[in-house]
Amino acid sequence: MNAPANIKTNYRADFPGIPADWHYLDTAATAQKAKPVLDAIARAYGPDYATVHRGVYARSANMTLAYEAARKRVAGFLHAASENEIVFTSGATDSINLVAESWGNANVGADDRIMLSQLEHHSNIVPWQMLAERKGAHIDVAPLTDDGQIDLDWIEENITGRHKLVALAHVSNVLGSLIDAKRAAAIAHKVGAKLLLDGCQAAPRVPVDVQDLGCDFYVFSGHKIYGPTGIGVLWAPYAILDVMPPWKGGGSMIDRVSFEGTTYAPAPGRFEAGTPHIAGVVALDAAIQYVESIGLDVISDHENATLAKAREALAQINSVRVFGPDKSMGILSFAVGDVHPHDVATILDEGGVAIRAGHHCAQPLMDYLGVPATARASFGIYSDDSDVDALVQGIERVRKIFG
Amino acid sequence: MNAPANIKTNYRADFPGIPADWHYLDTAATAQKAKPVLDAIARAYGPDYATVHRGVYARSANMTLAYEAARKRVAGFLHAASENEIVFTSGATDSINLVAESWGNANVGADDRIMLSQLEHHSNIVPWQMLAERKGAHIDVAPLTDDGQIDLDWIEENITGRHKLVALAHVSNVLGSLIDAKRAAAIAHKVGAKLLLDGCQAAPRVPVDVQDLGCDFYVFSGHKIYGPTGIGVLWAPYAILDVMPPWKGGGSMIDRVSFEGTTYAPAPGRFEAGTPHIAGVVALDAAIQYVESIGLDVISDHENATLAKAREALAQINSVRVFGPDKSMGILSFAVGDVHPHDVATILDEGGVAIRAGHHCAQPLMDYLGVPATARASFGIYSDDSDVDALVQGIERVRKIFG
Repeated sequence: MNAPANIKTNYRADFPGIPADWHYLDTAATAQKAKPVLDAIARAYGPDYATVHRGVYARSANMTLAYEAARKRVAGFLHAASENEIVFTSGATDSINLVAESWGNANVGADDRIMLSQLEHHSNIVPWQMLAERKGAHIDVAPLTDDGQIDLDWIEENITGRHKLVALAHVSNVLGSLIDAKRAAAIAHKVGAKLLLDGCQAAPRVPVDVQDLGCDFYVFSGHKIYGPTGIGVLWAPYAILDVMPPWKGGGSMIDRVSFEGTTYAPAPGRFEAGTPHIAGVVALDAAIQYVESIGLDVISDHENATLAKAREALAQINSVRVFGPDKSMGILSFAVGDVHPHDVATILDEGGVAIRAGHHCAQPLMDYLGVPATARASFGIYSDDSDVDALVQGIERVRKIFG
Repeated sequence: MNAPANIKTNYRADFPGIPADWHYLDTAATAQKAKPVLDAIARAYGPDYATVHRGVYARSANMTLAYEAARKRVAGFLHAASENEIVFTSGATDSINLVAESWGNANVGADDRIMLSQLEHHSNIVPWQMLAERKGAHIDVAPLTDDGQIDLDWIEENITGRHKLVALAHVSNVLGSLIDAKRAAAIAHKVGAKLLLDGCQAAPRVPVDVQDLGCDFYVFSGHKIYGPTGIGVLWAPYAILDVMPPWKGGGSMIDRVSFEGTTYAPAPGRFEAGTPHIAGVVALDAAIQYVESIGLDVISDHENATLAKAREALAQINSVRVFGPDKSMGILSFAVGDVHPHDVATILDEGGVAIRAGHHCAQPLMDYLGVPATARASFGIYSDDSDVDALVQGIERVRKIFG
């Protein structure tokens, strides 16, 4: 449970997709894939491939076992009370839309209110705007503290009995700010509102215990946690899922279909219409096994130690401005003087350093920061000192070119 | 363009997931994966892996090119007028739900009608039932002809100006019936209705030209065409897509997000919220390349020649009853006396023959046929005489056991 004394570990060797001379610092956009994940994908599409839930033959029965074992793995990972609380979706965006269209349509009415924050990702804004428009409901936007945290004091002061939902990033994808989720849950519950946590950036780098946090919905994406694309997770307590109406109709989510009237399967099956992303689910299991084999506390310490070195190095460079809290989780947004972030990223790319430049699907946060875009370096378990060195050298080169 | 004289081809060798002693006859549920698809998946998650549409660095720019090249490939495959008519979804079920929730919500009102048929898959029933319930609209169900084809005469006689949509399987997943899609389009258009074709079983085995067919929506799934799971396609003419409202909100589907009001991206991006199933899209491209390298006419001839042998052999076996039209496309549903189809499938599995037994997500069709389930053998490009022989031997064993 201790942080590694030396962050030079060999985790990077677990990732065949990262060549020695490449410095991948865009993990917050999507993570590279660990060898066990690549192997699980190859097996799932090769010697193990079959459909789930329907086949009588052995290979299909085995794939069904693997699929449901993955559900159990995800439940354990989030410390859910039961695997029946885990819904597989096509990604966190799909998960949030499911909550908005199913729970939201049933529970949010005219003049009800939804509390968001200024730093939310578009995926945790637009579905709620669409819901509010459908229902004549209203959205409130919590401001940030001076160091880029969601201002929970403000939420506590401004939340009312009309608020049905508070939806917040567990970790900000731009600033790396980690919310005090337990306090957010307490604030929401005091007025009878539910708390949804967007865990896209938290699940890969913070231990998550949904029961301890006390949230009501938790979502994350497979591809950000070293797993496959096209797969995501929605967790909610079974008592909530159980009464949520179906969203997408199709095969597998039904109990009995007839033209006189169709009845639906119990959760979580009710929310998994159609042939699922079989290989995605099985490979997500492998990704979570990989993460658990290291431990989220070790990953967190490793990333933060690497990030601290980067932050320290950037502080030495004149004209570099860093956004967000001093203690950010694996994510560092910055600006180099008034050089456009796209130019920063392009010059870094020439040196084999991959960072992201843009609005990071968080335009309201850009407006708030007063910039059109930021440069963002984001770290993963495979990040090491060589990445930090390359980042710093790249930024020096930017300064030289634009000097 | 000629059918192979001898159906003993070596296509089977293209599929590493099929051992020599295994007879996979569940291709209508999901197809095994060709080697080029497995290779594309391994590359996409390994040395090529990066996000799309956002990264400034070279690998992300390259992945974006690959992603958009796949869109172009799918457009060519369907003979669409433009790649901007191709929306990537998580599967055909997702595609149909997108049409129901976006186009349907905007175009179907109280007392409007939707025309389906008795043989539709649940994915082409339930979304329309949910839409009808939301809107107070009604569903009509076209009966089948005696040989298990959708009765287009009946549709022509019963369609009215209140019908906004006709939604039909291009090929039935249970009976293999191929619809005269051009005639269906003409019938629908005569009253101003749109025609949606569920192409899940057609796209892998029939040449599809959406412009020639004259349909308005076409959907299919990647995993049924030798491609990855978790990916699907919706095609519609741009004039229709262009005015369809967004369904899922999130990143990438927006033009500009602010809390004062959000504007949306043009189609097809407007319908692709969130990080897409990157590896799924790129591997779907590989699957379609594989299919095109053989040719849909060759695949169709190959499957039908194999199927004809199976049909002929089954006709020689007392007590075997075959459902559907004599000329079915790659799919053969049958019963062995009054042995339960699950028992048939279980015994076949013992002999290494994988067929499907069940309602095939088509309970209304089962009601119509007067059976709770059927046994179904479905063929692919890798099917050969050894599969037919093993199927026949297996059925003989069923008769012996239940004799």
